[in-house]
Amino acid sequence: MVQGAANWNTEQTQEWLQNYVDDWVSFYRKQTDEGEVASYIPILQEANPDHLGISIIGKDGMKVRSGDTEIPFTIQSISKVLSFIVACMEKGLAYMLDRVDVEPTGEAFNSIMHLEMRKVQKPFNPLINAGAITVTSTLEGNTSDEKLKPILDLMETILGYRPALNVEVYESERDSSMRNRAIGYYLLETGFLESDLNITLETYFKQCSIEVTVDDLAKIGVVLANDGEDPKTGEELIPRKITRLAKALMLTCGMYDASGKFAAYVGIPAKSGVSGGIVALAPPRVRDEDLPFINGCGIGVYGPALDDKGNSYAGIKLLRHIAKQWDLSIF
Amino acid sequence: MVQGAANWNTEQTQEWLQNYVDDWVSFYRKQTDEGEVASYIPILQEANPDHLGISIIGKDGMKVRSGDTEIPFTIQSISKVLSFIVACMEKGLAYMLDRVDVEPTGEAFNSIMHLEMRKVQKPFNPLINAGAITVTSTLEGNTSDEKLKPILDLMETILGYRPALNVEVYESERDSSMRNRAIGYYLLETGFLESDLNITLETYFKQCSIEVTVDDLAKIGVVLANDGEDPKTGEELIPRKITRLAKALMLTCGMYDASGKFAAYVGIPAKSGVSGGIVALAPPRVRDEDLPFINGCGIGVYGPALDDKGNSYAGIKLLRHIAKQWDLSIF
Amino acid sequence: MVQGAANWNTEQTQEWLQNYVDDWVSFYRKQTDEGEVASYIPILQEANPDHLGISIIGKDGMKVRSGDTEIPFTIQSISKVLSFIVACMEKGLAYMLDRVDVEPTGEAFNSIMHLEMRKVQKPFNPLINAGAITVTSTLEGNTSDEKLKPILDLMETILGYRPALNVEVYESERDSSMRNRAIGYYLLETGFLESDLNITLETYFKQCSIEVTVDDLAKIGVVLANDGEDPKTGEELIPRKITRLAKALMLTCGMYDASGKFAAYVGIPAKSGVSGGIVALAPPRVRDEDLPFINGCGIGVYGPALDDKGNSYAGIKLLRHIAKQWDLSIF
Amino acid sequence: MVQGAANWNTEQTQEWLQNYVDDWVSFYRKQTDEGEVASYIPILQEANPDHLGISIIGKDGMKVRSGDTEIPFTIQSISKVLSFIVACMEKGLAYMLDRVDVEPTGEAFNSIMHLEMRKVQKPFNPLINAGAITVTSTLEGNTSDEKLKPILDLMETILGYRPALNVEVYESERDSSMRNRAIGYYLLETGFLESDLNITLETYFKQCSIEVTVDDLAKIGVVLANDGEDPKTGEELIPRKITRLAKALMLTCGMYDASGKFAAYVGIPAKSGVSGGIVALAPPRVRDEDLPFINGCGIGVYGPALDDKGNSYAGIKLLRHIAKQWDLSIF
Repeated sequence: MVQGAANWNTEQTQEWLQNYVDDWVSFYRKQTDEGEVASYIPILQEANPDHLGISIIGKDGMKVRSGDTEIPFTIQSISKVLSFIVACMEKGLAYMLDRVDVEPTGEAFNSIMHLEMRKVQKPFNPLINAGAITVTSTLEGNTSDEKLKPILDLMETILGYRPALNVEVYESERDSSMRNRAIGYYLLETGFLESDLNITLETYFKQCSIEVTVDDLAKIGVVLANDGEDPKTGEELIPRKITRLAKALMLTCGMYDASGKFAAYVGIPAKSGVSGGIVALAPPRVRDEDLPFINGCGIGVYGPALDDKGNSYAGIKLLRHIAKQWDLSIF
Repeated sequence: MVQGAANWNTEQTQEWLQNYVDDWVSFYRKQTDEGEVASYIPILQEANPDHLGISIIGKDGMKVRSGDTEIPFTIQSISKVLSFIVACMEKGLAYMLDRVDVEPTGEAFNSIMHLEMRKVQKPFNPLINAGAITVTSTLEGNTSDEKLKPILDLMETILGYRPALNVEVYESERDSSMRNRAIGYYLLETGFLESDLNITLETYFKQCSIEVTVDDLAKIGVVLANDGEDPKTGEELIPRKITRLAKALMLTCGMYDASGKFAAYVGIPAKSGVSGGIVALAPPRVRDEDLPFINGCGIGVYGPALDDKGNSYAGIKLLRHIAKQWDLSIF
Repeated sequence: MVQGAANWNTEQTQEWLQNYVDDWVSFYRKQTDEGEVASYIPILQEANPDHLGISIIGKDGMKVRSGDTEIPFTIQSISKVLSFIVACMEKGLAYMLDRVDVEPTGEAFNSIMHLEMRKVQKPFNPLINAGAITVTSTLEGNTSDEKLKPILDLMETILGYRPALNVEVYESERDSSMRNRAIGYYLLETGFLESDLNITLETYFKQCSIEVTVDDLAKIGVVLANDGEDPKTGEELIPRKITRLAKALMLTCGMYDASGKFAAYVGIPAKSGVSGGIVALAPPRVRDEDLPFINGCGIGVYGPALDDKGNSYAGIKLLRHIAKQWDLSIF
Repeated sequence: MVQGAANWNTEQTQEWLQNYVDDWVSFYRKQTDEGEVASYIPILQEANPDHLGISIIGKDGMKVRSGDTEIPFTIQSISKVLSFIVACMEKGLAYMLDRVDVEPTGEAFNSIMHLEMRKVQKPFNPLINAGAITVTSTLEGNTSDEKLKPILDLMETILGYRPALNVEVYESERDSSMRNRAIGYYLLETGFLESDLNITLETYFKQCSIEVTVDDLAKIGVVLANDGEDPKTGEELIPRKITRLAKALMLTCGMYDASGKFAAYVGIPAKSGVSGGIVALAPPRVRDEDLPFINGCGIGVYGPALDDKGNSYAGIKLLRHIAKQWDLSIF
């Protein structure tokens, strides 16, 4: 597929990749009008539905970026991966897996029904809201800021800067997300919550309103791709076992109730957020020895026009195209 | 992990692997008494719960086999992967994906509820019974034998011999599987079925009663691992696109409602059957260049004592151990 | 409400009532085009949607009839009341209530989901299909004709003639009702069925295709109204305890998932069938001493144009109007 | 059944009835230890499980009281009948029935699932929590006290005194009923709520903690029995149409998911509360002209030991016995 690339130097390779990615982004940007920006949190509606941006970072640090890469957006559900990782680092895997299962559900992300119907002992997985709120409740600390701290710490280590909260989005979510409060009270009654509900929800809404860019997501992706190691220093930022579990969860449950289709057609671990962000990654297992860049790369995508499952419409199309062209699928 | 192995010749490597696998099998065989053989089909109860066997075949043809490798057993739900592949080959992916979705469900394999509750247009995926019966109904042919033929043809090409049906098991399932008849009539009423219900169920029960051994499953696994190519000849036996989709389905939905846990802890595509068989495979993407054998290998397991999800109790433990030791996880 | 009526003789009263009922029937007959004849059993579609007829029979034998009273139609789900009564007479109340509950469900009559979801030990009530099929399976006899016999016997005693089956409807239902076969196989697997499934379904389809007229339904109603006694002779045709239970079931579950609204707005025990028939009755508890006719009367209605719940559109409106005018509500 | 009673004077009748009721109460009081006092609201656990009391008031004012009649208890879910009546009086039936359906559900009183699963436009009925909270949200007023006022006004008119809140119970419910908060937030998100959630829940918890005795419940019952009229003065306290609807709801949905069984075995409109109270009534339609007392009587029962459905264990048995002895069933 990438014939002759073996003889290129890094610069040539990057230029060559850049051209391709630019083409693809401009092609799929035209499709953004088939999606719609999220409306359930009022302030998210202000996003520009025409935006589409991508950042890909290899484990060697090579970057290919294209489109609207400078727009900051809130991390939303992508934070569920980070809070789960941090909680596992604080409490251990066994503790966490006693409190939340790791099974996909087939239900929408905000379903309460599943909890009630199955008389389950625990939420289905950490990437649906019921599971994520349970996870957040296990974080150490007596205030939402204390609970949030290790998430921001981990992000700072990975990103090289401490990300900020978008206060306006936080307040908007805190004041409008009645379904999450319903889920929270349900969890409180059934004994899943390990902290005060208000502090838990405050933390949850804060973690969702952390502001990032596609570069940030790509940097998170590359650490996950490399089993939790900093690709430059080899330092373990996240234990390998936890990273692997997080990636398996992303593949089976990361894209809401379109996770199965994403696994089938794109085939890489990814997690989306309702603001239009997607973090994705290619585990370092690809065959193409001529293109080591894509082996273990992290990918950040932003495209706020969503499909009916809540995933970035153009973002998924773009990822599918890239995964196909570069054979990123892990299968 | 496998230090020094790089200098070994093939024979040394195989002997070395054989020793390990023998150890593991004899260790996990002791745990078979924590599972129970399936009771829902009367004849399956006659299986010996102490049996445990494994066959691993590399793309270079190297074989490591251990334990009860000679016991024939019926393929059961593992046939759902093959019938889906054959139906996609006959009708095309687009046609099939109009008729069955590819989303995991979180429900037990034999749930009717899901169909009714969600007012879905199609069953959730081809690996639950409702989806598998729908898939079987799309197979070409006017009789169950005609419908079954392309499945047996594909197996013959892969296995080198034409597998036989276990008539006793077939008759036992045909006469006892009331839930599948309930699902079948439900599908008939809702318009999913594309063939006569009796012929469809006859075909379905026949495909489930195809008799195989762990070697056969390993051979099927190695073809899937290598994207549908015969690893010896490079000939395409199954189109790559269909193979990839099948592997994604196996990972997200292959182990009933323990699929998420299997993805998290083992991390390779696999499909189990209620007779205690499991087909698994490692896509050719592993890092360990010293151990090329496991790169793209197929695995067949047999252990009829099942856990409460319907998967081989010792078989899953054995696979989990091997995947960890050899780092087979695709994540 | 019926001032001066106290001084009338029977003939005057009847004439007076007749005029009213004629007016009401001709008024509501104009509304039949807001309903639609049942389509799920092909042959039912041949009914004339403009038909509307009613027969009211007092315990003293006075009859008021109006509209299309001569059209024969199949009894359909109304037979569920009779089969439950007969089964209770054969097996005793305790036996039957071990096998089927008497709770309303809120679900459509043909739901399987409820059985699966609640892990119930028994179907919700004898007036949904799952309950009715279970009830039919408990009837004595080795063939469908033997099982059907006591139902026809009871009807013959009440009606004064032995009703016939509509063979064409029977065959149409037998060949088209896939949902009932799905329910049947589900019940078979879960151990609810007490007879061979095919014989049970054959009996069930036969009992549904018994042909009646509005007069027949009114005669059945008057016996139920009078706690199981023949109003002329005082002979006990159905034990009082069973009759009371049947009436309570009719009130809480008799009109599919519009039973609550019927209880609220009409307020008398009634059971509808998908062919457009309704049997209703006024327990002998009305206050209006001037109008003894309506005290303990039975009512048969026929109007094949159905509303979206499966009840006769104009029939319900007509019953609601009569119940209001004559204050039939039991509340 | 009550032979010779026709010749008795009122005093004789009352004495005779009193003897019977005393016998029955002392008999069923021995069965209280088969139930358990409610635990979901901590303070309710302090009730004495051995208590059993009943008050029966005829429309002529005759009273028969027995057992623990002086114990005050909180009205709990019985208030749902009153808030629905008051809301209908304020807003009209049509307005209310647009916001809450009148169908029984088959689900437990505190189910959220039903709302989610059926994509219903409105809660199933005003006697499950989701419906009752919706009803309370429609009450006029800007504070919980303003909203509560018409309920207390109506009770004052009926009881002859203004009932008080049990502040301890109110605070206990307010602080512990997480499921109701979950339901409240769910209703808020789906647009059912017509007032501020906190004020609505405050009102709801207040209405549940109104303190009553069995005499009070019997007085409410006798007004409902007589279609909303004060039995002494004939004055309309509640419009007849609303009263009838309330009674139909009590019969079909008043006893949680045992409503069908209560209708079948007791056969009169009744509503229970988790504190062990039951209000019941016999519509004035009984046949027994020798015993006019029971024709149109109201009944209050208190027995805090509950069965597994949340109804007073001994209370239901006592009502069933009385209904049978006096033939109160409306069927």
